[in-house]
Amino acid sequence: MSPSTPPWNFSAGPAALPAEVLAQAQQELTDWRGTGVSVMEVSHRGADFMAMAEEAEQDLRALLPVPASHAVLFLQGGATQHFAQLAMNLAAPGERADYVLTGHWSQKAAREAGHHVRVRVAGSSEDRGFRGLPERIEVDPQASYLHFTPNETIHGVEFHAWPDAGAVPLVADMSSDILSRPVDVARFGMIYAGAQKNIGPSGLVLVIIDRELLHRAGQPMADIFRYARHAEQQSMLNTPNTWGWYLAGLTFKWLLRQGGLDAMGERNRAKANALYAAIDASAGFYHNDIDTDARSRMNVPFRLHDPSLDPLFLDEATGAGLMALKGHRAVGGMRASIYNAMPMEGVQALIAFMGDFARRHG
Amino acid sequence: MSPSTPPWNFSAGPAALPAEVLAQAQQELTDWRGTGVSVMEVSHRGADFMAMAEEAEQDLRALLPVPASHAVLFLQGGATQHFAQLAMNLAAPGERADYVLTGHWSQKAAREAGHHVRVRVAGSSEDRGFRGLPERIEVDPQASYLHFTPNETIHGVEFHAWPDAGAVPLVADMSSDILSRPVDVARFGMIYAGAQKNIGPSGLVLVIIDRELLHRAGQPMADIFRYARHAEQQSMLNTPNTWGWYLAGLTFKWLLRQGGLDAMGERNRAKANALYAAIDASAGFYHNDIDTDARSRMNVPFRLHDPSLDPLFLDEATGAGLMALKGHRAVGGMRASIYNAMPMEGVQALIAFMGDFARRHG
Repeated sequence: MSPSTPPWNFSAGPAALPAEVLAQAQQELTDWRGTGVSVMEVSHRGADFMAMAEEAEQDLRALLPVPASHAVLFLQGGATQHFAQLAMNLAAPGERADYVLTGHWSQKAAREAGHHVRVRVAGSSEDRGFRGLPERIEVDPQASYLHFTPNETIHGVEFHAWPDAGAVPLVADMSSDILSRPVDVARFGMIYAGAQKNIGPSGLVLVIIDRELLHRAGQPMADIFRYARHAEQQSMLNTPNTWGWYLAGLTFKWLLRQGGLDAMGERNRAKANALYAAIDASAGFYHNDIDTDARSRMNVPFRLHDPSLDPLFLDEATGAGLMALKGHRAVGGMRASIYNAMPMEGVQALIAFMGDFARRHG
Repeated sequence: MSPSTPPWNFSAGPAALPAEVLAQAQQELTDWRGTGVSVMEVSHRGADFMAMAEEAEQDLRALLPVPASHAVLFLQGGATQHFAQLAMNLAAPGERADYVLTGHWSQKAAREAGHHVRVRVAGSSEDRGFRGLPERIEVDPQASYLHFTPNETIHGVEFHAWPDAGAVPLVADMSSDILSRPVDVARFGMIYAGAQKNIGPSGLVLVIIDRELLHRAGQPMADIFRYARHAEQQSMLNTPNTWGWYLAGLTFKWLLRQGGLDAMGERNRAKANALYAAIDASAGFYHNDIDTDARSRMNVPFRLHDPSLDPLFLDEATGAGLMALKGHRAVGGMRASIYNAMPMEGVQALIAFMGDFARRHG
């Protein structure tokens, strides 16, 4: 898509990429940096790709920022693989880990980890249908780590402040909110994120891990599963997803040009505020029942007062150039995912459409 | 690169993609199938992507062909991850597996699997410096499977006929020769291949597995590592590498247009024969010391009689538009990787350059 023009893509992921990033990728697809070939056709160990890879890491380190204490890895397998793999790396056989449950994804993270570590629930809002954050989080000081999901893409619940895990390493699945606001990385033992929402195409996973944790013995497993081995080899223990790494690098540069994460955080807050305000001002035509202090700035789920209007809403939205608004089947209704690549113009177009639809069908 | 023009890219992987595939990917990068967005920006569970994914599988099934007895999976992690993962899936704790060693990659496959299964060497040509195939392969009838590497990209050694494993399932890492010639898939328990040589970009792994093997209990592990779970979910247990899957689909269609694998097999044989003939006719200026009946048709390693000429050879080759000819550091010398996407014109250009270089420096 070109800048500031429809269709506006509200897909939860794989999601919209910045228009400028796509344009550059298209332009240099068959001749990357004067090599005469595509970035997909060069060795990951060649000088050209190595320079690009290093640049991408440095740009990411500048953006977040990532302190020297933490290694940055560009891996594969999706966040789901790392639900299991992080337990294999951070916990020895028989050890325990604490999980905070705030929706579909944190539940899944706990379930997959449960094959490799003894999972304990440190806090949960399941009894309230995941309409907010847990009232209390009680961390076991003996836990190998405390895992939480800063943003739940399906339920639309987001931590606006980080839980306090004391001396227990904090591990966060930031797949859907990484790079959407500033993060104090030093507070985290490990941050990981599937790329397909705020970083790049699917098939790439970013892992940011405190080097101290790389010394943990973990569980018996092949080297390819060990974060320590990947860190020693600068994520080139085997052939990485070179296209994903390249597009992530272009996205990091785009974010720097946008003014970095302070600017993105403000922009994302403004986008979400505008959309929630429109929902709340619709006199019940639309509603979102998540606690105000836990509403997601990335994924805005909402329902129509009359669900029988859902198909018509989706049809007309598509006709108006507003794509992929159908909510996840687990919760129904609608969902507008408004990651970094969605400009305010797209959100305004959605708000205008919603107002018009409500007037015609209210 | 555009069809039949330099630079000729002899990279061992990530390797050259068919020029027509790249041109199409470039053309539709920002508007895929009339969606108005990139193929990277749509949900893998949406109707558009699902249709493409199914089409890619059907095209692959038609190409090889793949019988109904075998499932086709589009996964992540590189072949290296599957060195371990296949052992986790195909062998229960304490069980044994047989490995045939013919070079760097089969050794690595055995080493990584060794974390999860008791590895026994069923045959090896290591005592001859991997200059050919093992004289004998003795399969343990109790082995969970027999693993071999049909083509060794570093040593340039290829099986021209498959080993006989009797009732023991045959497992092959076809990363560097899949789709380069016809294969009787029914003879294999499992075939797997990293995409970045003959299929598409890196970050995608193709797994073709006899559905019978999906019933094996395997080892305790998270669902995300189980081939059976991936098969049940049509490789959408989690978000797949959608870009890789898409490019693989374009490549399968390109192969069908080329006349399928019979035609590719003949073309690849002709390319390799021409290059080996030029090496053998160089009166020792160039040489390749692999047994004639085991020479690889995909990766042609060769040495100059005087290694002090290597840097000049590489410099002049690059100047002549012949890219990435440096041999792997483990064996030195030169290597020309001539996968499906390398046309005969590229091989002829290399042969002409080699002849000229030899005349000037012989």
